[in-house]
Amino acid sequence: MALFSMKLENLQQLFLKELRDLYDAENQITEALPKLINASRNAELKSALQEHLQVTREQINRLDRIFRMLNEKPTGETCKGMKGVIKEGDEIVSAGGDASTVDAGIISAAQRVEHYEMAGYGTVRTYAQLLGQNEMARLLQQTLSEEEEADRKLTQIASSVNVEAKAA
Amino acid sequence: MALFSMKLENLQQLFLKELRDLYDAENQITEALPKLINASRNAELKSALQEHLQVTREQINRLDRIFRMLNEKPTGETCKGMKGVIKEGDEIVSAGGDASTVDAGIISAAQRVEHYEMAGYGTVRTYAQLLGQNEMARLLQQTLSEEEEADRKLTQIASSVNVEAKAA
Repeated sequence: MALFSMKLENLQQLFLKELRDLYDAENQITEALPKLINASRNAELKSALQEHLQVTREQINRLDRIFRMLNEKPTGETCKGMKGVIKEGDEIVSAGGDASTVDAGIISAAQRVEHYEMAGYGTVRTYAQLLGQNEMARLLQQTLSEEEEADRKLTQIASSVNVEAKAA
Repeated sequence: MALFSMKLENLQQLFLKELRDLYDAENQITEALPKLINASRNAELKSALQEHLQVTREQINRLDRIFRMLNEKPTGETCKGMKGVIKEGDEIVSAGGDASTVDAGIISAAQRVEHYEMAGYGTVRTYAQLLGQNEMARLLQQTLSEEEEADRKLTQIASSVNVEAKAA
């Protein structure tokens, strides 16, 4: 979140702070995903991560739209949570080893990313509803549903990758 | 995760690495929760976080049991993801401001913690099942269910705290 601390005076301010946090998180993900895609050996995993990179770009556009509606800048927060989560994915890739085991580790790291985002989007979607910002709530719910779907897809791919890793 | 990179050769190794990651995460949470409890103003939130601190200690005991069953040490990994997520909670507390808004921010940060753990425990529970470690799978599922329950409880508390923060 913020590099400097701004007092939190009401829900509207917290809403803006958290949207900026998610904006930074999504941009970090856009930078991190190509490395994971490159390191993935399972074709289904590679293609799911490639698809998610596209989806992430659309999610950033959706946030840009919300910032325009709020007449606010999207920048100003560093999402430290996502920084840490992404480092874990990097370590899996750097460690290397058996291809299926590395793929299983990539899935595990990617699911931590998805879960972080689910928590974040669930929160701002609820704030938007409370603040009477129905169009923003709709856009944020759309992203939340995409993150949930990406997580389900990864669980499904894991069911075969983990079995291969077990046999390694 | 690891400070040095050990090659990942099979699911058993990845399982151990992720258990150590969660062990470190839980210990970080144990250190971080008292600060959040202290900063919370809503009585229901304070008591839910206090209860979760107790639950977290039991979850650490459960992991200790699993490490004994595996005849392995629990230490050796730093959970960078949890480090970042916890920093976000610290920032909310340092920022200060309207009490209900800070409480709403604490809930948001705590739900990111819960979601990170849900992803982590879901993964190791599945690995344990695949590795035929049924007792470990049962213990890990128990913790996963507790994290899900803590998340639901926080959502419920948020429903009144957010309304107060909106009116601030």
